[in-house]
Amino acid sequence: MTMQWRMLMGQRAQQMSSSIIREILKFAQQPDLISLAGGWPAAGLFPVEDLADACREVLSGASEAALQYGVTEGYAPLRRTLAEMARAKGLPVDEGNILVTSGSQQALDLVGRLFIDPDDVVLVERPTYLGALQAWQAYGARFVSVPVDDDGMDVAAAEAVIAKHHPKFVYVMPNFHNPAGVTLSLARRRQLLELVRRYGIALVEDDPYGDLRFEGEDVAPLYALDAASLAAGDPGSVIYMSTFSKTLAPGLRLGWIIAPAEVAQRLAKAKQGADLHTASLCQVLANEYCQRGLLGPHIEEIRATYRERRDALLAALARHMPPGVRWTQPQGGLFLWLSLPEQVDSLKLLEDAIAAKVAFVPGTAFYADDGGRNAMRLTFASTPPALIDEGIRRLALVLKKHMEAVNA
Amino acid sequence: MTMQWRMLMGQRAQQMSSSIIREILKFAQQPDLISLAGGWPAAGLFPVEDLADACREVLSGASEAALQYGVTEGYAPLRRTLAEMARAKGLPVDEGNILVTSGSQQALDLVGRLFIDPDDVVLVERPTYLGALQAWQAYGARFVSVPVDDDGMDVAAAEAVIAKHHPKFVYVMPNFHNPAGVTLSLARRRQLLELVRRYGIALVEDDPYGDLRFEGEDVAPLYALDAASLAAGDPGSVIYMSTFSKTLAPGLRLGWIIAPAEVAQRLAKAKQGADLHTASLCQVLANEYCQRGLLGPHIEEIRATYRERRDALLAALARHMPPGVRWTQPQGGLFLWLSLPEQVDSLKLLEDAIAAKVAFVPGTAFYADDGGRNAMRLTFASTPPALIDEGIRRLALVLKKHMEAVNA
Repeated sequence: MTMQWRMLMGQRAQQMSSSIIREILKFAQQPDLISLAGGWPAAGLFPVEDLADACREVLSGASEAALQYGVTEGYAPLRRTLAEMARAKGLPVDEGNILVTSGSQQALDLVGRLFIDPDDVVLVERPTYLGALQAWQAYGARFVSVPVDDDGMDVAAAEAVIAKHHPKFVYVMPNFHNPAGVTLSLARRRQLLELVRRYGIALVEDDPYGDLRFEGEDVAPLYALDAASLAAGDPGSVIYMSTFSKTLAPGLRLGWIIAPAEVAQRLAKAKQGADLHTASLCQVLANEYCQRGLLGPHIEEIRATYRERRDALLAALARHMPPGVRWTQPQGGLFLWLSLPEQVDSLKLLEDAIAAKVAFVPGTAFYADDGGRNAMRLTFASTPPALIDEGIRRLALVLKKHMEAVNA
Repeated sequence: MTMQWRMLMGQRAQQMSSSIIREILKFAQQPDLISLAGGWPAAGLFPVEDLADACREVLSGASEAALQYGVTEGYAPLRRTLAEMARAKGLPVDEGNILVTSGSQQALDLVGRLFIDPDDVVLVERPTYLGALQAWQAYGARFVSVPVDDDGMDVAAAEAVIAKHHPKFVYVMPNFHNPAGVTLSLARRRQLLELVRRYGIALVEDDPYGDLRFEGEDVAPLYALDAASLAAGDPGSVIYMSTFSKTLAPGLRLGWIIAPAEVAQRLAKAKQGADLHTASLCQVLANEYCQRGLLGPHIEEIRATYRERRDALLAALARHMPPGVRWTQPQGGLFLWLSLPEQVDSLKLLEDAIAAKVAFVPGTAFYADDGGRNAMRLTFASTPPALIDEGIRRLALVLKKHMEAVNA
């Protein structure tokens, strides 16, 4: 009898979606294509020399810690380093609140594993980070959403949705949102906390880009705002997550979760069954790098480069885009969000754009429902200013043709 | 209102168990304790110099591949290296059959994620690897089991269990079983394959220790035996998994799955939501190490050390253990299994053993049901011969007291 694998696969297998970005990137490998698509940080900015130095030290000194099994919670010195970094942002935590994860994708997965039963509801932004949708779909989550505007999540719209759908948690990316590029205002952060507390639900604060601010003032993390006003015995309502992927190097696959101790412990149990622990070599290396005081200056450096590229993208859009196209003004991060006239379908546009040697991610990739057709995400991360201008010139040409076609 | 996290957690949170081994190890950190408990490879055997050399090369040459995001399936050159290693063992595969995982714990997790719906049945050995139980419990698996004897899984007993309980798959560790130390005979491998084919179910072959053979002849992997007799169009019934954790260094968290291409692709989708991909640095480093031809000679070296330690453990058991105690004779791997007289409870024994400065893992940790009370797993991996003898002397003393007490 011929083996029928499909018959054996579980319901979860049906719920797994593949990342549309990864599919696009397969077509976007031609060397003369200008990709404003992938969310990859610029490889040219990786601190290769300093990492190589730190690695040499680690494999001569702490080589057992770097090569042996470790505890699920993470390498203790790294957890202390991360706790110290968090305290500097106003989060009143210690290493008992920290779980090191295999990238922040695993942080999302572990939250899903711990909280989501099939058909549980999760409230997300519209648009939202597609990796979160992908992680939680696998656990059978149903998504409800509220829109994002220039001040981030529309918190006023959230209450009715919460009251109606009783989500397990709200997922928010407050700083330099991927894909929208916007930042949640302080007033809305306070309103959102008041709301989740009132309904007794959790808030998942995903902050991969917070350190990449180009201008303006940092806004306090929701975790810090929540903790500042807790009554005795209240563990707080926020799970915070971040990553070294955008500030140091994604190939290390190092993220972390900051949570009330009881939640951190439960998440560690979930992680034990998932992959025992995160690669020791990467943890010890990242800790050595941070302990040498290199991370802060490195972030300063990449911020300057990304700022220049963001400026180039904004200038190119202003120069080339036809009337009727709008875009966000990110104060940091790697992305901005472009809204097209209503009749333009960015998925169809993409085919012609790739033929014209420029790539972007269509907006639909970032929607739990079928929204986002007339929008796209652009990144300025990996492209030098001159090429950004040329890419936007190509994109604007293709777009004008589409707009003429739909108006004809 | 005070936040009630427990109220929000899903059913999965109730099914997660913590590793008893990890709990024991917390008590087993005293420097004068002789631990025959943890399954950690000997850190003194890690090829630190060669890894440091390879790492230097990797961070000067292929630094972008080592630090940037990568594809979910794994670093392509490493997948080719792994396919080549598999072909040398008789598995007719190429890189399309390979998925690199974050340790073989993640391989187990991904199999669970793809195949197990709540209340699905999995057939395991008795005893079995506790990490597999832990991974699959989280997906709501129910376990049925068949015993292991000196020739591995009792395949004759498996048919009735399969016919009655219709498991999704059979999980077997054919070489130097953890914890039993035994190897599945060739005849039983053929019978087991015939059985799973007849019932149209899958076979998960977990092979972390196969390269650590001290004596005797290699037995063909089930994947190879299955593939050798397939009709046209039949993808085969076996998912094979292995790891660098026992041969190179567990801190790299590098495992891999070998499966029919359609299954490998589905598992890659599952992995994408779990952690995007395995740490690039570790993958590029391991590939560089293998491509330098260092793995084979290194395995020869550690085999010699582990063999010496195995011999020391067998000799110490023969020297110190009282009548009524039996143990397996592993031809490789890191473990053996000790069976005590029926009335002795190894969990109770453990307390006194730790007081006497020797540690082991109680048998119950390796059972899906409540078996294994009068058994234990011993490892010889990390302990020099003289200390092995002293550890067994201490253990035998404590055991004799327990045996006198239960006989009194």
